[in-house]
Amino acid sequence: MPSSELLAKYADVAIRVGIGLSPGDRLLISSPLAAVEFTRVLVEQAYEAGALNVDVFWSDEAVSRARYKRGGAGASEVVSSAAHAQLAAYEAGDLFLYVSANDPNALAGIDSALVASFEKVNGTALEELTRARGTMQRAWSVVAAPTEAWARTVFPDESTEDAVEQLWTAIFRACRADQADPVAAWQAHVSDLTARGRYLSGRGYTGLRYQAPGTDLTLGLPDNTLWLGGNAGGTFVPNIPTEEVFAAPHRMVGEGAVSATKPLSLFGNLIEGFSFEVSGGKIVEATAEKGQETLDRLLETDEGSVRFGETAMVPMSSAVAKERLVWNNTLYDENDGCHIAIGRAYPICVEGGTTMSPDELEAAGLNLSTTHVDFVVGSPELDVFGVLPSGGEEPIITGGEWGFPA
Amino acid sequence: MPSSELLAKYADVAIRVGIGLSPGDRLLISSPLAAVEFTRVLVEQAYEAGALNVDVFWSDEAVSRARYKRGGAGASEVVSSAAHAQLAAYEAGDLFLYVSANDPNALAGIDSALVASFEKVNGTALEELTRARGTMQRAWSVVAAPTEAWARTVFPDESTEDAVEQLWTAIFRACRADQADPVAAWQAHVSDLTARGRYLSGRGYTGLRYQAPGTDLTLGLPDNTLWLGGNAGGTFVPNIPTEEVFAAPHRMVGEGAVSATKPLSLFGNLIEGFSFEVSGGKIVEATAEKGQETLDRLLETDEGSVRFGETAMVPMSSAVAKERLVWNNTLYDENDGCHIAIGRAYPICVEGGTTMSPDELEAAGLNLSTTHVDFVVGSPELDVFGVLPSGGEEPIITGGEWGFPA
Repeated sequence: MPSSELLAKYADVAIRVGIGLSPGDRLLISSPLAAVEFTRVLVEQAYEAGALNVDVFWSDEAVSRARYKRGGAGASEVVSSAAHAQLAAYEAGDLFLYVSANDPNALAGIDSALVASFEKVNGTALEELTRARGTMQRAWSVVAAPTEAWARTVFPDESTEDAVEQLWTAIFRACRADQADPVAAWQAHVSDLTARGRYLSGRGYTGLRYQAPGTDLTLGLPDNTLWLGGNAGGTFVPNIPTEEVFAAPHRMVGEGAVSATKPLSLFGNLIEGFSFEVSGGKIVEATAEKGQETLDRLLETDEGSVRFGETAMVPMSSAVAKERLVWNNTLYDENDGCHIAIGRAYPICVEGGTTMSPDELEAAGLNLSTTHVDFVVGSPELDVFGVLPSGGEEPIITGGEWGFPA
Repeated sequence: MPSSELLAKYADVAIRVGIGLSPGDRLLISSPLAAVEFTRVLVEQAYEAGALNVDVFWSDEAVSRARYKRGGAGASEVVSSAAHAQLAAYEAGDLFLYVSANDPNALAGIDSALVASFEKVNGTALEELTRARGTMQRAWSVVAAPTEAWARTVFPDESTEDAVEQLWTAIFRACRADQADPVAAWQAHVSDLTARGRYLSGRGYTGLRYQAPGTDLTLGLPDNTLWLGGNAGGTFVPNIPTEEVFAAPHRMVGEGAVSATKPLSLFGNLIEGFSFEVSGGKIVEATAEKGQETLDRLLETDEGSVRFGETAMVPMSSAVAKERLVWNNTLYDENDGCHIAIGRAYPICVEGGTTMSPDELEAAGLNLSTTHVDFVVGSPELDVFGVLPSGGEEPIITGGEWGFPA
């Protein structure tokens, strides 16, 4: 494990920037057992920041694996303790901190139909909380901690001990925890992302055009689109780290082809070398070199899981991308380059969206789904253009970097 | 860790005898992180026995300690995720398995008023489930697994590794897991305890008299008292191991003095060398050589925490007592000799009790409380007599052993 000073600084970023915890707040941390040491530091730092109460809901990949491996179809139709604990915490007014510390291959060999069924049943049970998070009515954040299994996939040539050490070091750098005053560094970074979001919102783009090897895609944007970054307009930062400025594409407008540039870890399986054909905003064909079945399951989740819910801009020089790693973790991969999400859009991405009903959101062009899965399209060869109401185009991303000044 | 074969046999006793799990049952296991290896075996064996679904609610003593140490009074007035998870599981029809794997000194130095407050708030939230367990309407069981901290208190002269090994060995013997067919051995044992319960119920005792060094106590028994042992009349065995045949004393009838013969681990603290003066069934004085404050907090819980709720007979030659250990764990200590409980009585201990309202139970003489804490009074010098309606006495326990034939 890293020094307790570094761990405390990193935990402080999660608590004070990620969650934006204020004295008197209640906090529920959801953490895998594998992150026990770091999560105990999070608990200490949350009380240090004045939390009224900190509760932890622990999960264990071995128990999840047993559910799918031993439990039969019935076990995948059960609303889990994890969902119940979160719903009760939501009622009680808790803030939500999620620790991502997984084995990217934890569910290898498991029937992904079972995983998809479980995710759907529990996603439906958690709909109200998901909506409160999506509309930024409730503070939440995701932060990662290395596991041995995860570290080995990132540094396959190192000993397990060295791999874990190097992954911690990369995470600390990517999250500015190695700086003298990480919280101040984050405040400056969040300001920059927020300003870029304001700039893009002000341009009034009606659509986007993606151009890269294997990618030639146009997406529509809803009227009154809001581009958001950093604190997403609230008192908290939903992802630590975050390097993105994002919006929601129009659910019905999209044509062309798009290829992922990074593998995707989903339902405990890795999907690699995948691309989509898009027509009328809908994914009409999906092919993967590896993990085709898992990808198909994702798309079968519900009506909204064949449409897009997010488009995010991330420069290749971001603190995360600078590490030049294949992270095998969505939280990091999605900040490693531009990405698009399959599934649910964030209602905050359109003016007035937070008070719209599901029907109104859909009418405004925002996608609804119980799922939200990012895939990375960023590379040094990616150009993204904003389409002006006049039909003209402006660079947003050029050769993988910001195409407009800060 | 012990061999996987022994662990599986021990887990099988918990699942097939303790919970009495049938195919299609849902199970919630509550387990400390410290028991992770054994709890994963429990999950496997539960699916092996046909469980529809197995969920685990994990707890961590470090998080509990932080609540009391860092969280202030407010943190001790919060209904925890543990309670919410159990209530949701109760609604869904789950059976309940509790893994006891603690550090007996986990909360040393913590203000026991905070612990008592937390226990009371969460005890109240769980009242319906507690009642369902107490009336045996819902299958539940407690089973233990060694922790390093616990093993060191039992075998203080051994290395940590050896202490853990020896505690596992003692637990396996005490739970018959080392026998060729542990489940069959348990069926025979449960039959013996059940027969002894039937015998004592048939005698119609109106009271009990305890005689031992430091103890000279009479307790009343309610009309229509039922003595129960083994499966407590149900399809499950609430404690693995169990060596007791128990009843509920009359809440208003008790006179004399009683001294504990074993330390009591409570709210993470050890109470040692303690005794009570009893008048009108009420504890009117409590003194402890160590842990006085913790003992006082227990008695201040509510109206019922100064009266008794259980009287249990356990021979000194029981499988647990034969190990001749100071277990520092209530589950084992209470099977190490006769014991009495402060607090809540089990409604099953009087005829028709399971359908009585709280008022009716109290009128029948059964004690109500949010707490139930056993203390051991057994020793080779203990005699317990049953008082007949005629006023005559019969031996129940003589010199620490059964005073009547099987």
